[in-house]
Amino acid sequence: MTESYQPAMTDAGLSFSKPTIAIDEHGDSREIELVGERALTIYVDKQEIVTLMTIGTHPELLTLGYLKNQGFFEDIREIKVVQVDWETEAVAVVTDHRHSDFSEQMAQRTVTTGCGQGTVFGRLMEKLKQIRVPESSIRQSTLYSMLDTLRQYNEIYKKAGAVHGCALCSGSHIDFFVEDVGRHNAVDAIAGYMWLNGISGENKIFYTTGRLTSEMVIKVSQMGVPVLLSRSGATQMGLEMARQSGVTLISRAKGKHFLVLNGAENIEFDAVKAD
Amino acid sequence: MTESYQPAMTDAGLSFSKPTIAIDEHGDSREIELVGERALTIYVDKQEIVTLMTIGTHPELLTLGYLKNQGFFEDIREIKVVQVDWETEAVAVVTDHRHSDFSEQMAQRTVTTGCGQGTVFGRLMEKLKQIRVPESSIRQSTLYSMLDTLRQYNEIYKKAGAVHGCALCSGSHIDFFVEDVGRHNAVDAIAGYMWLNGISGENKIFYTTGRLTSEMVIKVSQMGVPVLLSRSGATQMGLEMARQSGVTLISRAKGKHFLVLNGAENIEFDAVKAD
Repeated sequence: MTESYQPAMTDAGLSFSKPTIAIDEHGDSREIELVGERALTIYVDKQEIVTLMTIGTHPELLTLGYLKNQGFFEDIREIKVVQVDWETEAVAVVTDHRHSDFSEQMAQRTVTTGCGQGTVFGRLMEKLKQIRVPESSIRQSTLYSMLDTLRQYNEIYKKAGAVHGCALCSGSHIDFFVEDVGRHNAVDAIAGYMWLNGISGENKIFYTTGRLTSEMVIKVSQMGVPVLLSRSGATQMGLEMARQSGVTLISRAKGKHFLVLNGAENIEFDAVKAD
Repeated sequence: MTESYQPAMTDAGLSFSKPTIAIDEHGDSREIELVGERALTIYVDKQEIVTLMTIGTHPELLTLGYLKNQGFFEDIREIKVVQVDWETEAVAVVTDHRHSDFSEQMAQRTVTTGCGQGTVFGRLMEKLKQIRVPESSIRQSTLYSMLDTLRQYNEIYKKAGAVHGCALCSGSHIDFFVEDVGRHNAVDAIAGYMWLNGISGENKIFYTTGRLTSEMVIKVSQMGVPVLLSRSGATQMGLEMARQSGVTLISRAKGKHFLVLNGAENIEFDAVKAD
């Protein structure tokens, strides 16, 4: 798990919100914060792959995680350079040219989920059938203290709204927290963080403010994280995917409430309170 | 405004949620509803276009609106058949073959926004520069009664969560309300409804529970709707797009509160209450 390799990367994270003037229901001016939303086109060895709309706080990790999650690369060592340039709204990825033909991945970007129309390259659904996340148990009390800690995050949301947050957690410790205009970008940035740092999903917990749709569950399963927790609800297909890959799926996690949709046997109910 | 043309269409709308058993924080079983999420692959004249993940309540309208919003067609008369088959998770669209080569639209599906990674075919951003929505004024009191009426909708959300709702409104009257797992699907279904029934956006109000990102504003502008209202927040680029196309943009509309981000001069503040 100890990878020391790192591609040459820019550090082009943007600050996330800017003030603007709004008129409220009293007809009064009020200064509010709006999150930025920037286009970022990913080029791999000069080939245009996709344009993402992002808040822009972690463009390099987003790029890495996107390419990893979409099945473009397996080994981080294939990536030599990740260079973000906001002037041209582009990120240039240079590889070792082991793979140079992405036409297969590009041609198959048809299954789209997420907020309904995300893009999934390749045969992710097929791939999921072979994925079983490692077994993991979690205590209810750990879950509660994790949710407590998370309350201090959600910084951008509190200030400007219009974002989704995702976190990679070890027990009640938050390893990495990302917010973005798209919850899929936030997931991808975390995937990039894990990939870059050689972190496996084993014994981790993935938290998202977003809904537990099929694409969310597929991505987290791919990342090998056994527990997926959300403040929001789930869809039937999200649940089905979780059953397939063995992900413990918990929805509506807020305060002391939660609903376990899959893998209840992995939860140790050590903090049950009488009503 | 009066189109009597209608393609031959199936009526394959699905019911939207199914019961499932969840375990709550007390370790007790509880029956909850989960929304369905179905894959639907659009084929136009046997050419595969895209796969959408949808709740499936309005698959024909979703298909029509998707194709319209993505710039595949302008004239509804070009569409001869819209045939949904859930067995194969496919919708077959048959056209008059006036256009048969979609390689241009397909090649350009690179700008992706929405929840961060939606797919926009073609040069929508470019197109937006030429769009000015018709001028329209709206009374604060109308806005309030519209929000009141909308509270009775959001049926699926209340029951199962994990969906976004969109509505096309005439003053305080709700013309059409759609919920879907993706807010972009909900917008597209409304676009399909307008296209099919020859309804222009003039004097309409578009309501969404989702965030006001660039893609949302672009779509509503394209549909010619001059007022866009959301329960959620906006992004900077959403605001920029609204300034370009002249859309009156209102965020955080909930109860008696709202924030006008663009076009405050179009609002008649006739219901200002003293704090």
